[in-house]
This record gives sequence, C-alpha cells and structure tokens, in this order.
Amino acid sequence: MLTFYYAPNTCALASHIALEEANADYETRRVDFEAAEQTKPDYLKINPKGRVPALATGRGVLTETPAILAYVAQTHGAAKLAPLDDPFAFAELQSFLSYLCSTVHVAHAHRRRGYRWADDPAAQEAMKKKVPQSVGACFDLIERKMFKGPWAMGEAYTVADPYLFTLARWMEADSVDPSAFPRVLEHRGRMAERPAVQRALKAEGLA
Amino acid sequence: MLTFYYAPNTCALASHIALEEANADYETRRVDFEAAEQTKPDYLKINPKGRVPALATGRGVLTETPAILAYVAQTHGAAKLAPLDDPFAFAELQSFLSYLCSTVHVAHAHRRRGYRWADDPAAQEAMKKKVPQSVGACFDLIERKMFKGPWAMGEAYTVADPYLFTLARWMEADSVDPSAFPRVLEHRGRMAERPAVQRALKAEGLA
Repeated sequence: MLTFYYAPNTCALASHIALEEANADYETRRVDFEAAEQTKPDYLKINPKGRVPALATGRGVLTETPAILAYVAQTHGAAKLAPLDDPFAFAELQSFLSYLCSTVHVAHAHRRRGYRWADDPAAQEAMKKKVPQSVGACFDLIERKMFKGPWAMGEAYTVADPYLFTLARWMEADSVDPSAFPRVLEHRGRMAERPAVQRALKAEGLA
Repeated sequence: MLTFYYAPNTCALASHIALEEANADYETRRVDFEAAEQTKPDYLKINPKGRVPALATGRGVLTETPAILAYVAQTHGAAKLAPLDDPFAFAELQSFLSYLCSTVHVAHAHRRRGYRWADDPAAQEAMKKKVPQSVGACFDLIERKMFKGPWAMGEAYTVADPYLFTLARWMEADSVDPSAFPRVLEHRGRMAERPAVQRALKAEGLA
C-alpha cells in the first residue's frame, strides 16, 4: 500500500492522476498548507523539503514529480503510462517532465513564491509582473515544438499528460491567455473528460 | 554515433562526464555562448530552447540533463551508471536528479540569469543577493538528508555523481562556503580524481 501526500492546487495533482490512471493501491493524506503543516516536524520527517507531493512506499519516501511519475509508470506496467521498453522514447518523455518541472513550474512559482529567490518585496513584485510573459513563453514552446498530439508525447497517453494538464490549469491565474495555445487548451479539455482525472480532482475537492 | 552539444561552465558538464564514464561513442560540438550561438537559428533547429546540453541521437535530439543522464545510463548498461532493474532505487536516483535540476540549478541561476524572471535591474540585484542563502540551503539539505555516501546514492556510483559534482563546482562563485558541507566537498575532491571526469574537464578546456 502506497501513501500519497498532497495538497490541492499544487503540482501533486499530476501524480494523483497518474496513481488513478494506474489503478494503484494507495491512500491519500492531505497536507494542510493553510496551517503550514508542510513546515512542521511531523511532515518534515516524511519530506525534509517541506513540499508536496511525496509518495511513501514500503521501501521509503519518494519526492519530486518527475521521479514519482516515472516510478508509478514503471511499477504499474499494465497501465502503459510510459514507453518503458524504448530508452529513446522514455528519454523524450523524461525531457518533457523535466521541462515542466524545472522551467514551467519554476516560472509559475515566481508569482507567489518569489520569496524563495529574493527578500525585497519590490523584487517579488517585479517577478510577479513577468510571470505572464515567462509562463506564456513556456506554453508557446510546448504548443509549437514539444506537444506532439493527440497526447503530449504522441499517440500514446503517458504520465506527461497529467503533468501538462496540471500546469496548464494555472494559466488563467498566471494571466496567460489559454486561447493563444489551442492544442494545449484542447488537451486540457480532453484530459478533464477522463474518469481518472475526474476521480483525482474530486478527491482533492476540486470538482 | 551521438553528437553532444555543450558549453563550458554550464550544467552540460554532468552529461559530458556521464558519456565518458559510459565509454560512449560520441563527438562533441562546443556552442559558443560568447557569440550567443545558442540563440541563433542554426542551433535553435537542434534545440529550440536555446540551451545546452543537447544530445543528438540517430532518432532525434534529447535535451534536459536528467533525461540525458538516464538515457546514457539506460543505453550503456555495462557501465552500471543507474540501478536499472530496481524501480524504487531508480526513482530515488531520479528524485536526486530532479532536485538538482529544478531547485539547486534554479537557485544558482538567479545570480546571473535573473532576467529570466524579472525585468527590473534592482530586482535582479535582489535575486543575486539571495543566492548564497538559497544555494547554501540546497547544499545543506543535500549534505544532511540526501547524500548517502560514499557516492550520492550510496555504495554505487551513478549519474547523480557527475551532476552533483557539476553544481557543487559553482559554490565558490555563488559565495557559498564549501567547508560547511564536508561530505559534498569530499565527494567533489574524489570526483576530480576519476579519469572520466578529468577527460571531460580537459575536453571542455577546464583542466
């Protein structure tokens, strides 16, 4: 039995959807961000980074979305969530996950988590101001160069899809106009129709 | 034959070392950052992100360090650069790679690449000012919680080692005192003695 630690409206949704797609045997623990539970000793014992998601397994706790997504795919092969027998295709998938993690999510985080990178409130305001442009540039690259269609990596649905869906849901809050990215927008709509996505959203109180 | 695109003093060194450790059949192409070659149409055809590293394979170009590192490990199994038959151990390795990519490298990038996240020069100065603290906090977590020893992931050398080595080389430039992190520092010294590391450094004109 896996235990999945999440908070709503975070990137944990991607792993949550993947667990649902994989029909994994897991239970959820909601981490109360309003009460700053992620910074308290009990949670830091689980994830010393003080972040979500975290996935507790029989062998230890895994953190970082790309790692959890690949792990869910590898340990639930029947769900076919990654091209596990093709190192090049797997690397392309990993490249997509890594870009979402280190560039798209990071650009987004400058809207409300600027304190990670500057103490000056004016600097944090300046970061917030650039988010529509920096996040927009990311989705422009995804739309034009990375998204293969109909799913992120092409014909096969993979763990890149719930991750893209999760970050694409933040566009409006980041003042990025989704209509500029019709393929990403269409993908977002199609994802919302999947039963696994609906189950994860409902479990997080988002639908 | 693989073609590896790099520039010196970038995170591409991690993949370069991994290719050497794997005894891979590859050639290198240096991207001239001083001439902003990474922003020119010829290079953007190879990597539309305008970054390094990029690894051109017979099937297409791979980008993003964690993806390239896992690919090199998977396609050069004899070099034993990753626990390929153990999904949990592989996920722990991937979690380490992802943290280096999305948190450590990102914290570091705020010293000289602040323009990615704010236009205001004063904001970029404020970011630069926080780098010793934010990068230092990353290495503190690595030192205390993540680094297993003697190698990053424990007894076995993996692709996490050249990546950690690459980012740990930037500590002094980031005004982070390496002596506060004796295990990371000792690892950096031990890495520098490996023939593959010396070959990669020499090829990049760094040794």
